[in-house]
Amino acid sequence: MASNKKPIIGITPGDPNGIGPEIIAKALLRPAIRRLADFRLIVAEWRPRPPFLPAESGEFGGRYLTDFCRGVLARMGRTSSRRGPTKSSGRIAVESVLKAIYMAMAGDIDAIVTAPISKEAVKRAGYPWPGHTEILAERSGGGHPVMTMVGGGLIVPLVTTHVSMRDLPRRITRAKVLRTIQVIHDGLRRYWGVRQPRIAVCGLNPHAGEAGQFGREEIEQIAPAIRQAQRAGIGAVGPLPADVVYHQALKGLYDAVVAMYHDQANIPVKMLGFESGVNVTLGLPLIRTSPDHGTAYDIAWKGRADAGSMIAAIRMAVAMAIKRKA
Amino acid sequence: MASNKKPIIGITPGDPNGIGPEIIAKALLRPAIRRLADFRLIVAEWRPRPPFLPAESGEFGGRYLTDFCRGVLARMGRTSSRRGPTKSSGRIAVESVLKAIYMAMAGDIDAIVTAPISKEAVKRAGYPWPGHTEILAERSGGGHPVMTMVGGGLIVPLVTTHVSMRDLPRRITRAKVLRTIQVIHDGLRRYWGVRQPRIAVCGLNPHAGEAGQFGREEIEQIAPAIRQAQRAGIGAVGPLPADVVYHQALKGLYDAVVAMYHDQANIPVKMLGFESGVNVTLGLPLIRTSPDHGTAYDIAWKGRADAGSMIAAIRMAVAMAIKRKA
Repeated sequence: MASNKKPIIGITPGDPNGIGPEIIAKALLRPAIRRLADFRLIVAEWRPRPPFLPAESGEFGGRYLTDFCRGVLARMGRTSSRRGPTKSSGRIAVESVLKAIYMAMAGDIDAIVTAPISKEAVKRAGYPWPGHTEILAERSGGGHPVMTMVGGGLIVPLVTTHVSMRDLPRRITRAKVLRTIQVIHDGLRRYWGVRQPRIAVCGLNPHAGEAGQFGREEIEQIAPAIRQAQRAGIGAVGPLPADVVYHQALKGLYDAVVAMYHDQANIPVKMLGFESGVNVTLGLPLIRTSPDHGTAYDIAWKGRADAGSMIAAIRMAVAMAIKRKA
Repeated sequence: MASNKKPIIGITPGDPNGIGPEIIAKALLRPAIRRLADFRLIVAEWRPRPPFLPAESGEFGGRYLTDFCRGVLARMGRTSSRRGPTKSSGRIAVESVLKAIYMAMAGDIDAIVTAPISKEAVKRAGYPWPGHTEILAERSGGGHPVMTMVGGGLIVPLVTTHVSMRDLPRRITRAKVLRTIQVIHDGLRRYWGVRQPRIAVCGLNPHAGEAGQFGREEIEQIAPAIRQAQRAGIGAVGPLPADVVYHQALKGLYDAVVAMYHDQANIPVKMLGFESGVNVTLGLPLIRTSPDHGTAYDIAWKGRADAGSMIAAIRMAVAMAIKRKA
């Protein structure tokens, strides 16, 4: 693509039984959004092919994409029962993402925006991955993806993603903490234009372990990683108590907060209910964003889904693609 | 005490090397606060006795308490170096709390407000407890204390308090979850005047375990406890994903959110930095509140401490004491 043109943004439908198609349609029928980029819906194996899709596999832009959006919204409320997670919906969701990854790696698109998939459907379709991040990790050529929650004035990369609390402590390793710090440092410089990023790193335990009294991961894994990052010239501080650090970040003391686990990142980002929460995957050779919510099967195909987070994800992907080209 | 009089509120100094004396002084020198109740500073073994204390042990109200407040503030910035946690400061902190508990159990005071203590100092002084909640648990006659964070529009009781993440999963038991639900149900009715409390219960794991995919504590411990509470007529729902539930609570769907661990409660309550965060201990035969921050040794005796959370803790104790008498 030529650098003076609009970025090309690939969008995957997510689980077709979820709210993905609806929020894509609602977002892309807004002229203010549509103007931002050259959008391509990327689908694979959408069988049986619904009437609003020109083919069960392929990329659709321009008029075909507009027809898709209108066709999806025309069906709202007309389908009496949708099916939740199925083998078929899982296959469509995953194969579409795999196709988008290949296109991004080939340089055919500048960024990927993914609609929500269901871990249950992915499992039924026989794939080994619990979520998008893990698919991207395996299929984007050896990068180390860092799931990063962006919203409510916070930028929060995660050291671990979908891990039970029982397994969590052993997953907090010096190498992963350091890698996460390095990735957000690079990301803040590349995509947010922060020249000297200030990065706060959370502890794992209450009060960041309080000098080893409530856990030793801070002493044995997190603090050494922070020191190593500091020696490399990165402005990282911590480990800090997670219940103190977000308030400080909101006051402007830090550009990003490294969280150790899913809820430590997602509680603060989603709490205020800004519909602008976005999941950004950093650390890969491609740009990928997504809404910060799930498939919401319970309200799917009823016309009631809020496209706010999808719109924010699209805006973020466009901004990142432009920054990278600059 | 007669029920038509002001409540009698006992205040403990916390660690004397921390900001406790300063925030007590700043709070109680405000006429609007002082009018709310009959306040008594409860101290024990404050040795060597500082000039602003009439005796190293005892309860001080009225003019003596005013002299204490003025004397503390007069020393701000004059002491060149304070010592952080010491054996002596830990002993003063704990013995004062023990005295306050005895007084509350004897009916001499209607509520206790505790200034912050240091786990490190308590340890150096040779006591076995990591915090106030554990002292209260042992010394208040067999109650089951439930630490409850109140602030920013949220009421959040905790199933566990100062526990490392490594130990956390095995501490989430059906009995403790049920007990916490029962205590907040009673507390909402007694102290907040909610007749039919609606209580949300968080999961432990990401996405509340997502049907067992990321942990089984929800299935094996939390959900059975919720069902048992429901059978007893309590309006409890869950387990719900912790990153979704606080937004719903802020919208008014729930009166309280039961959190499984320290940061799951404290991140949302403290995030917005309202200086009104209060720690309330429910489930005991006495009323106890405290600020939601620590000793802050680094700024102690410099005159820079913010009394906002102490003031909120005092107001809460007064309101609870009046409600209970009513």
